[in-house]
Amino acid sequence: MKEKLNVIKVGGAVVEDPKTLGVLLDGFAALPGLKVLVHGGGRAATRIAAQLGIESVMIDGRRVTDEETLKVVTMVYGGLVNKSIVAQLQARGVNALGLTGADLGYMRADRRPLKKVGDQMVDYGFVGDVKDVDSSILADLIARGVVPVLAPLTHDGKGNMLNTNADTIAGSAARSLAEIFDVTLTFCFEKKGVLSNPDDDDSVIPSITEESFRQLAADGVVAGGMIPKLENSFDAIHAGVSEVVITRADQLGQGTGTTIRK
Amino acid sequence: MKEKLNVIKVGGAVVEDPKTLGVLLDGFAALPGLKVLVHGGGRAATRIAAQLGIESVMIDGRRVTDEETLKVVTMVYGGLVNKSIVAQLQARGVNALGLTGADLGYMRADRRPLKKVGDQMVDYGFVGDVKDVDSSILADLIARGVVPVLAPLTHDGKGNMLNTNADTIAGSAARSLAEIFDVTLTFCFEKKGVLSNPDDDDSVIPSITEESFRQLAADGVVAGGMIPKLENSFDAIHAGVSEVVITRADQLGQGTGTTIRK
Repeated sequence: MKEKLNVIKVGGAVVEDPKTLGVLLDGFAALPGLKVLVHGGGRAATRIAAQLGIESVMIDGRRVTDEETLKVVTMVYGGLVNKSIVAQLQARGVNALGLTGADLGYMRADRRPLKKVGDQMVDYGFVGDVKDVDSSILADLIARGVVPVLAPLTHDGKGNMLNTNADTIAGSAARSLAEIFDVTLTFCFEKKGVLSNPDDDDSVIPSITEESFRQLAADGVVAGGMIPKLENSFDAIHAGVSEVVITRADQLGQGTGTTIRK
Repeated sequence: MKEKLNVIKVGGAVVEDPKTLGVLLDGFAALPGLKVLVHGGGRAATRIAAQLGIESVMIDGRRVTDEETLKVVTMVYGGLVNKSIVAQLQARGVNALGLTGADLGYMRADRRPLKKVGDQMVDYGFVGDVKDVDSSILADLIARGVVPVLAPLTHDGKGNMLNTNADTIAGSAARSLAEIFDVTLTFCFEKKGVLSNPDDDDSVIPSITEESFRQLAADGVVAGGMIPKLENSFDAIHAGVSEVVITRADQLGQGTGTTIRK
């Protein structure tokens, strides 16, 4: 029997608000057993880039990362956000260790090739598509009581950091760790879960399977940005993750939200 | 017999110049045996603070660290500089792991109390005086082939990062690791070593003992800022460090520079 492991992903909006982040970290610290935290930081990066006179260009929800922007995200994700979370977890008795993909070389990426978006060929710049996750490095840390805190940064093995989406880091780490652990991947979200009525915050669908997803999508109950989120969740499950949970940051560990299973 | 360990400290001027840094990292990667790298980053912090409209206030060579400045140094030291070095070391086959004092909780500090400098009582703000180094955490990593890359940041155990001078981090880590290893502490410097003639860059004094230091100081051969550097070196040696080397960044591992022994 594999040991249970929670991989928790928290986005840039939660990270940017000290109070919400504090509540999330309380919930995370209280989670029993083995755990990993993955964080975003896009809002802070956009804010600091603007202060430095660097315009943030987003295409298809992804940040175009030129050399100056790479410096900003390396500073903000790897430094400001990651170390703030690590220090606050240490204060809560969690033996946190902040990691980018370059640290211990645990996650390597290839620089994204030119990509067609609509009619346009887009160069995303220093953006990394995950190539290789060394799960043994993470597993070894976890087995020794360390709680990895993963920043959304990878490296190319040639000396360059690369910007990688935090959902992708969480999904890649969770899949890779599923070889060794019984992994639950939780996305902390601004809503309480997947809603059956977008106007009713309490209309959380407690459980979604592939079969019920097809029906919910066909009926138009689940639509828009939730469709790729759920598709990605099923991809993770097909790759060995036991379940995916979508819940609100302040309800972590309370058994609420939407659970996605095969 | 204790195993040999090199603790190498490199300052902000080297870190700020990509070419010099590359040469230093080549030299560091080529060093045989166990090693730790400690880096500064003051010049980059001053530059980025200025870009963000934050004035850098230095008193007695130390940065006054208000809340906004703490964010800058956390970004620059913990993110930009640390991760750039880690990625470049990984590309050179060195299994680098970037750490601040908060990571694994390896180095805790107390916020510096008000300090009298000249006639003035100075509040340095979020500056940490090292209180506790957990050498077993570093030693355990080192024993497993990891090369720690230490940023000049500590934490207070209450959730706050603190700004700590890189020479202090290097000295504290070296002393603490001397319980376990036979430690050589090397300061990479802009000069080839301690010079007997400040106008002659090749007048390096190859070796200084406490006895010869007293004579050199009495004769005025060693003066100014070199006096506290050497005093700190002897402090490290009294605390168990085997030797201190002062050399130029591009000559690391070449047996040049000034060696300071009891």
